[in-house]
Amino acid sequence: MNTIINNIAIEKAKTSKINEVDFDNLKFGHVFSDHMLECNYKGGKWQTPVVKPYQPIVLDPAAKIFHYGQSVFEGMKAYKDVDEKVWLFRPLENFKRLNISSKRLAIPELPESYFMDGLKTLLEVDKDWIPKKAGSSLYIRPFIFASGNGFHASPADEYKFIICTAPSGAYFAGEVRVLIEEKYSRSANGGVGFAKAGGNYAGQFYPTQLAIEKGYQQVIWTDDNTHEYIEEAGAMNIFVRINDTLVTGPTSDRILDGITRKSIIELAKSENIPVEVRKITVSEVVEAAKNGSLKEMFGAGTAAVISPISGFGYKNEDYELPKFDDTYASYLKKRITDIQTNKAADPFGWRYEVK
Amino acid sequence: MNTIINNIAIEKAKTSKINEVDFDNLKFGHVFSDHMLECNYKGGKWQTPVVKPYQPIVLDPAAKIFHYGQSVFEGMKAYKDVDEKVWLFRPLENFKRLNISSKRLAIPELPESYFMDGLKTLLEVDKDWIPKKAGSSLYIRPFIFASGNGFHASPADEYKFIICTAPSGAYFAGEVRVLIEEKYSRSANGGVGFAKAGGNYAGQFYPTQLAIEKGYQQVIWTDDNTHEYIEEAGAMNIFVRINDTLVTGPTSDRILDGITRKSIIELAKSENIPVEVRKITVSEVVEAAKNGSLKEMFGAGTAAVISPISGFGYKNEDYELPKFDDTYASYLKKRITDIQTNKAADPFGWRYEVK
Ligand SMILES: Cc1ncc(COP(=O)(O)O)c(C=O)c1O
Ligand SMILES: Cc1ncc(COP(=O)(O)O)c(C=O)c1O
Repeated sequence: MNTIINNIAIEKAKTSKINEVDFDNLKFGHVFSDHMLECNYKGGKWQTPVVKPYQPIVLDPAAKIFHYGQSVFEGMKAYKDVDEKVWLFRPLENFKRLNISSKRLAIPELPESYFMDGLKTLLEVDKDWIPKKAGSSLYIRPFIFASGNGFHASPADEYKFIICTAPSGAYFAGEVRVLIEEKYSRSANGGVGFAKAGGNYAGQFYPTQLAIEKGYQQVIWTDDNTHEYIEEAGAMNIFVRINDTLVTGPTSDRILDGITRKSIIELAKSENIPVEVRKITVSEVVEAAKNGSLKEMFGAGTAAVISPISGFGYKNEDYELPKFDDTYASYLKKRITDIQTNKAADPFGWRYEVK
Repeated sequence: MNTIINNIAIEKAKTSKINEVDFDNLKFGHVFSDHMLECNYKGGKWQTPVVKPYQPIVLDPAAKIFHYGQSVFEGMKAYKDVDEKVWLFRPLENFKRLNISSKRLAIPELPESYFMDGLKTLLEVDKDWIPKKAGSSLYIRPFIFASGNGFHASPADEYKFIICTAPSGAYFAGEVRVLIEEKYSRSANGGVGFAKAGGNYAGQFYPTQLAIEKGYQQVIWTDDNTHEYIEEAGAMNIFVRINDTLVTGPTSDRILDGITRKSIIELAKSENIPVEVRKITVSEVVEAAKNGSLKEMFGAGTAAVISPISGFGYKNEDYELPKFDDTYASYLKKRITDIQTNKAADPFGWRYEVK
């Protein structure tokens, strides 16, 4: 059955896989919904997107994605409330960031309507896949990659923009121990660190594996020049609480401008939690851990929302963070997820109903 | 017809595309030979490679190559001499570097025999595709990418190692004008710049486009911290000739350890050309351009072998290089290509016959 919603042609899957899915025991990003959005760039412009059954992508071996890593992506979530209403969180921010990333990767920018209408249409078609259970959500993965061919290190002439969705449980189970990185780094001044470019993530895998072998779960990235400034926590922005002040580093061309990060800053300010956006040095964090003023550290990102850090390693020493209830992390996480899932008022206008 | 060579099963293409190719007017990397090598990593190990008809790759939309840029590649050339003998240039260096790149990108390392036997078998099957015309060659592109699935930023559990080949003409036509980069950079200390990782190349496209808009063809990359050290020329290593001395920067974790670069160093030394491997500052190059001691600049890499630079831009000033015959660039290029194509003796043992 082919229909059209928001000008987007829909080819429905013949059969649904939904009954095979155990919605009570979802992992993160391992099961994919019945449909996907596809939009192709060729002949110098983005073609009208279509919704079609989730299916393999067929590419020439010379497609530039395989050779030159020309790809960008986004990560979002859709939530279903008790009344079956479907909500997104600040989706226009993801759209804007996708185009910021694309520009840096020499990928043609996407029209807003293709992104927003495409997303809404896809969610409409696959609305049964949006979990209702608390902590669960439909993880949404928009991505663009170079599908044009050639063994010449230059931008492709064809691209694919795809959105896939995956009903998902929580990203991290529990608190994480992190290693402050002294040798490796994820981004350069004047590089692509601020973009959500595929290659940034592959570069993190090996240093993260080394940290895992040493008993940590994540790496705290520091600047590549001095390794003295704390920049990100794995694939999340980082917050540090010193006494009662929440501190996070300023964004830069090395750091992703996270939507969770900026929402936390706004939310904390509105709740009279003192917030400072300024460079954080490793030495001050170590010092604060030693003198007891370091109360909390946490990562912030769409997947985990807020991921509390229980301790960190640095120069072969381990530092523990205090354990207590009423942390900023748990309070802010509840506040944000309540707004996201329509359990609390949204004075910021962040929630976006899909209808 | 299925046969086996070097333990590698061969599925022959039913028809050949070779008669469609104009071997007198080859571009670089736009036409692909009849066959490809494929080797899959799954269940914790690399499976036996096979040679099969050049064909599309079919991947799930959740394959990690699309999302996390986990890929590495190599670039090599095969030459055919007047007696129809087939030659590679230092292929074991490419094999070793592929594994060095893989390690940094958390990709499982490949056994040497899969690479070397796979390559030899593929070249045996497609030997008619190796051009004989001077300046032409069969460009060889080994690459590995994450084919395993999941929206979780962690290494994939499945990979594909593929070799494709493309009969090719010269990479650059003529001399290039370059822009010394003051803002963007291609790699970080502790990053992946020394690896031939896909993501490194996509990151270069946008700054290169900006340079092209200003009338240059390539960017000279400088260090990301001070932009005061000259590091690479586009996707090539860089050499500068000051008076009669050839200077190239030392390799580091930001710079690819080029096989052409190290061959040039050895060759120049053996010919009593003074060579220095030391950091090169932008200021000394500008100074040398001003006082006339800057004689030559050139890029060095497999594709172009040596690519002479005719002038450079820096801080809105343009600097011209002198024009004269008997340059190091033309002399060294001839020496190397003569060795590569079996037109001259090979005292270094670089040439490798495929038989
Ligand atoms: C490197 C990096 N930092 C930070 C974030 C957090 O960004 P957001 O809150 O928009 O998800 C992400 C994405 O999740 C990321 O990939
Ligand atoms: C970034 C970069 N630098 C230098 C080189 C030169 O290396 P090689 O001489 O081994 O081809 C290459 C590859 O061609 C490269 O991609």
